[in-house]
Order: sequence, then structure tokens, then C-alpha cells
Amino acid sequence: DSVATVIDGKVVAKQIREEISVEISRMKEQIGTAPGLAVILVGARKDSQTYVRNKKKACEAVGITSFEINLPEDCTEEQVIKHIDTFNSDPSVHGILIQLPLPRHLNEEKILNAVTIEKDVDGFHPLNIGRLMMQGRKPLFVPCTPKGCMELLHRHKVQIKGKRAVVIGRSNIVGMPVALLLQEENATVSIVHSHTKNPEEITRQADIVISAAGVANLVRGNWIKSGAVVIDVGINPVDDSENARGYKLVGDVCYEEVCKKASAITPVPGGVGPMTIAMLLSNTLLSAKRFHKLSN
Amino acid sequence: DSVATVIDGKVVAKQIREEISVEISRMKEQIGTAPGLAVILVGARKDSQTYVRNKKKACEAVGITSFEINLPEDCTEEQVIKHIDTFNSDPSVHGILIQLPLPRHLNEEKILNAVTIEKDVDGFHPLNIGRLMMQGRKPLFVPCTPKGCMELLHRHKVQIKGKRAVVIGRSNIVGMPVALLLQEENATVSIVHSHTKNPEEITRQADIVISAAGVANLVRGNWIKSGAVVIDVGINPVDDSENARGYKLVGDVCYEEVCKKASAITPVPGGVGPMTIAMLLSNTLLSAKRFHKLSN
Ligand SMILES: NC(=O)C1=CN([C@@H]2O[C@H](COP(=O)(O)OP(=O)(O)OC[C@H]3O[C@@H](n4cnc5c(N)ncnc54)[C@H](OP(=O)(O)O)[C@@H]3O)[C@@H](O)[C@H]2O)C=CC1
Ligand SMILES: NC(=O)C1=CN([C@@H]2O[C@H](COP(=O)(O)OP(=O)(O)OC[C@H]3O[C@@H](n4cnc5c(N)ncnc54)[C@H](OP(=O)(O)O)[C@@H]3O)[C@@H](O)[C@H]2O)C=CC1
Repeated sequence: DSVATVIDGKVVAKQIREEISVEISRMKEQIGTAPGLAVILVGARKDSQTYVRNKKKACEAVGITSFEINLPEDCTEEQVIKHIDTFNSDPSVHGILIQLPLPRHLNEEKILNAVTIEKDVDGFHPLNIGRLMMQGRKPLFVPCTPKGCMELLHRHKVQIKGKRAVVIGRSNIVGMPVALLLQEENATVSIVHSHTKNPEEITRQADIVISAAGVANLVRGNWIKSGAVVIDVGINPVDDSENARGYKLVGDVCYEEVCKKASAITPVPGGVGPMTIAMLLSNTLLSAKRFHKLSN
Repeated sequence: DSVATVIDGKVVAKQIREEISVEISRMKEQIGTAPGLAVILVGARKDSQTYVRNKKKACEAVGITSFEINLPEDCTEEQVIKHIDTFNSDPSVHGILIQLPLPRHLNEEKILNAVTIEKDVDGFHPLNIGRLMMQGRKPLFVPCTPKGCMELLHRHKVQIKGKRAVVIGRSNIVGMPVALLLQEENATVSIVHSHTKNPEEITRQADIVISAAGVANLVRGNWIKSGAVVIDVGINPVDDSENARGYKLVGDVCYEEVCKKASAITPVPGGVGPMTIAMLLSNTLLSAKRFHKLSN
């Protein structure tokens, strides 16, 4: 039995962050200003606070100025949108993130749409998604997690053109956009979802499998063609008495089984996760360069 | 050998046009006004003139007021956009079509984007396509040909949920949107394109095949699983000495072979073609109802 190469997202993400850091230093020298990222957090969810803190730290490490607004759980839609408008017109802010999920009383669609598309570094605006889908149009920003998956494939020199790819999951933020990106590079793509019958049969035909279902141990060894490349986007908490917190995080892929079939595989944690945040920094830099009309 | 049921687009389209006609009569009684569709034609291509004339006739037959602007081949972008703006703000116009292709010196993207999304009855605006793609969002208009394909499946009571579907072709106006519509109804969709290796193998797994490649006789009998439903969108001219014009129009599907394998099939002509124009009328009516805030 051969064992799959581990696609180490931490290592690739670190390399990307270093590249970004170098570019930002150069930018500061050239025009005396750094990219800026604003994050709006509503309420006090522990996990959201952790995500926001991590984004802030990652920004600071590469030289991106970070702005943070914390609004109380019971704030109004108008208040959130007022802050978005302020950031929309602030020339030192090049990316605006609304930390999700929002409290239930707020209209997520309306709030996300308030972010100007030029600063929507998450790439979630429907106009951006439309452009992502259309041949001959380019999105302003490629959504971060899908972009991170593609970057892992590229940096590991995985051939995409002409290959069969299966994406498990079809969400707006991961499954659908990553399927479009694979297709844009001329893979033949099938999308598996919760109504798919015999998902293992279809998945077994794939040279590239990207799983974003949010179901622990969904993808078993017998789902995988020998030699396939497997990208595991899932982050799923499962009980673990040996862990101080009582749980650990695992992917969608049954790693022990699949690593014996695949030629390459991303671990969880340490695979796609670190790439998502690196791509957020990359999109923010891109936005700042576009704003200042600097060449790529 | 059993022979496939013919899915007769002419009959279904006629039925839909009658339904639309009844609705429009009722609308005129209720509010004293009819839906309006404006078509802008630039230049004097024979085929485009025929398409525009057919659309006009179809409008008149159901009671839609049609408006037509013919601009010379050498007109400027600004002139075209000026006419679009006039229609955008005209309350008697509920749909605006730009007949494609435009002369090369005009920027198609810019001109199409000038049509207000509320009157983009073709459904080609990127914001509309984005909404079509996203779960939890609804497009204002479903593009006509894809909508026509789905309508044929629906009126023939073809089960979609849980079925395997293959779409051949991935254009902005047919392949991609029809794939999204199938997926929205919970089919498991694979998209085949010109870089796909062994397209026949993938297609043979499908319960529903929609071909929009523009290649005569591409889909052979051995591409089709026994009992599959086949929708042929292709319209391809092939030489035909018996025909007065010297050519005839055929689909992508090798009809004689496939009709022996499929359980149902659309002919060309008389399949998807008549549905496209019926869906254009349907979108125009929808737009007028939305404008006048009439219920569906
Ligand atoms: N690494 C990272 O940085 C990120 C990781 N994630 C993780 O990725 C996973 C997916 O996230 P997200 O896309 O937001 O999740 P969603 O819940 O929005 O979407 C899950 C998708 O998976 C499909 N699905 C669910 N169960 C099955 C099943 N048994 N078989 C096949 N398909 C199934 C669903 O199908 P249907 O549409 O039919 O319901 C749905 O399309 C989660 O674990 C999330 O934590 C997410 C974002 C970033
Ligand atoms: N019935 C109706 O009302 C309508 C009919 N049509 C007809 O439908 C057909 C498609 O139209 P449209 O979508 O605009 O065409 P496009 O030329 O824009 O797209 C054709 C698609 O088919 C793919 N393709 C081409 N050759 C092959 C092949 N050998 N194997 C697999 N895939 C292939 C192309 O792949 P790639 O992307 O890799 O190049 C492309 O995605 C045409 O015949 C057109 O006349 C169109 C609109 C309305």
C-alpha cells in the first residue's frame, strides 16, 4: 500500500503570507500606505470572536491595517448598514467583512448587499458570483475558501484540465464556487449533494475530489479512485474524551482509509483552513492595488 | 426495440401561449393595459431580422405590445444605450431585448448591462445569473431556453429529484443556467464540454441528458442509457441537396439512433426552439405583472 502525499495547507499558507508581506512592504515604500481590512461583528458569539481575532492577527502579521466594529446583539439593521456605508467611503479601507452568522432579527441578504462590490473581499455579492459563473466575465474577488482549494491544487501542480472532478456540497460559499473554478480550468465537474443517490459511485470516478459537506467521515476509502487528489474542506466537531474541550475537529474525509487510496490529501486541521485566511489577505491586497491603480 | 415518446415542443408551446393569452386578456380587463416588449436590432443580418420578426409576431398573437428599433450597422454605443435608457424608463415597456450578435465595434457587455435588470427578460444580466446560482436568492427572470427545457420536463412529468443529469455545453445562455435549474430541483448534475474526455461514458450514466453543444450528430445511440430522457437544444445547419435552401437544421442528437434508446426525446425542429419564444412571452408577462403589482 502506498500512502498519499500530505498537502500541507499550513506550509502553503505561510508561504503565501510571506509573499503578501513582501508586496505590502513594497507598496508602503511606493505610495506610503497599506491595505486596510474592516470587520464588523454583531453580538458576542465565542466562535465568531475567535474568528475575528484570528483575522485581525493575520492582518497585522502581513502589514494590513485592521479595523474592527463590535455592535451589540440587539442593534438594528440601520446601525449595521450605517457602519458599512462609512467603511464603503473610507479610502483607507479596501475590504469589508461582515462576520456571519448575524443575529436572527437582521436581514443577512440586505446587510451583505450593502457592502460595495469593490470592497466585498469575501466575494459573496450576487453580482460577483454571476461574473464568476459567466464565460467572458471576471469576478472582482474569488471567494476565499474556493480560491484556497485551487491554490493548493496549483502549488502542488495537480493537473486540472481534462480531469474528472467531483465536488461534494453545493453551498454559495464553498461547493458551488469551487465547482465553477474547477470547470473554468476545464475539469469535467459533477456536484454531489444530499439528494444524490450512490454518491460513492460518482465520487469513485473522480481524479479530483473536493468535499465540503460538513459531515464527519462521509467520504470513505471505497469512495476514492486509486491515485485521486482529495481536498477536504469540512470542519466538523466530534466528541473526544481525550481532548480537554471534550471534542476535536475532523474533516468530511475518513483520513486513515482515504490516505491509502489517494495520491495526495489535505489534513484537517492544517489543510484548507489556513488557506482561507491567507486568501482573505490576498483579496484585500488585490483590492488595495486596484484602488491605487497599481499593476499586478 | 421500443421507440421514444416524442416531446412535442410545438404543442407545449402552443398551450403555453394560449395560457399567456388568457392571462393578458384578463390583465387588460383588470387594469386596461397590456405587457410591452421592445426589441433593438442593430444592422441588417438576415437571420437576426427573421428572429426579430418572429418575436414580434408571437407577441402580437398573445396580446403583448411590441416595440422595435432598427439602428444602422455603423451606429455608436451611445446611440444604442440612449434607446435602451428610453425603454428603461418607459412604463409601457416591460421587457427589452438586444438582438445578438451586435456588430463588432460595439461592446456587448456594456450594452447588455445598460438594460435595467427589471426589464432584462432574457435573464442575461450577471446579477440575475448570480441570483440564479445562489441558494436562498431568486433570479428576476430565468433565461428563456433553459426555462423552456425545464418546462418540457415538467409538462411531461419527468422526475428530476435524485436523478443523474448530464448537460452537454456550458454557455452563459444555455448550458450553465440549465445545469443550475436541474440542480435546483435536486438532480445530480455533471457538465460535459469540449475538454471532457470520454463524454459518452459520463452521458451514459444520465437519466436526463440536455445537449447544447452546437455539434450535429454529437450524441450517438451508444451515449444514452436505456430509458433516459433526452432534450436536444442544438440547432445546426447541415448540407441537404434535397432542400431548396441547400441545407437543413438538425440538433446535436443523432435522432434515429437515440430514439431507440431513450424513453422520451425532443425533435429538431419542433422541440426546444418553439419553447424559447414562448418563455420570452412568459417572462414579459411576468415582468408586467410585477410592474403593476398583480399577483401571480
Ligand atoms: N476550511 C475552511 O476554511 C472552511 C470550512 N468550511 C466547512 O466546510 C463544510 C461545508 O461548509 P458549507 O458549504 O458552509 O456548508 P453547508 O451546510 O452550507 O452546505 C453543505 C452542503 O453539503 C451537502 N451535504 C450535506 N450532507 C451531505 C451528504 N450526506 N452527502 C452529500 N452531500 C451532503 C448539502 O447538500 P444540500 O444542498 O442538498 O443540503 C450542502 O450542499 C463545513 O464543515 C464547514 O465547517 C466552510 C467554510 C470555510
Ligand atoms: N433551441 C433554441 O431556442 C436555442 C438553440 N441554441 C442552439 O444550441 C446550441 C448551443 O448554443 P450555445 O450554448 O449558444 O453555444 P456555444 O457555442 O456558446 O456553447 C457550446 C458549448 O458546447 C461545448 N461543446 C462544443 N463542442 C463540443 C463537443 N464536441 N463535445 C462536448 N461539448 C462541446 C462547448 O464547450 P467549450 O466551453 O469547452 O468550448 C460550449 O460549452 C447551438 O446549436 C445553438 O444554435 C441556442 C440558443 C437557443
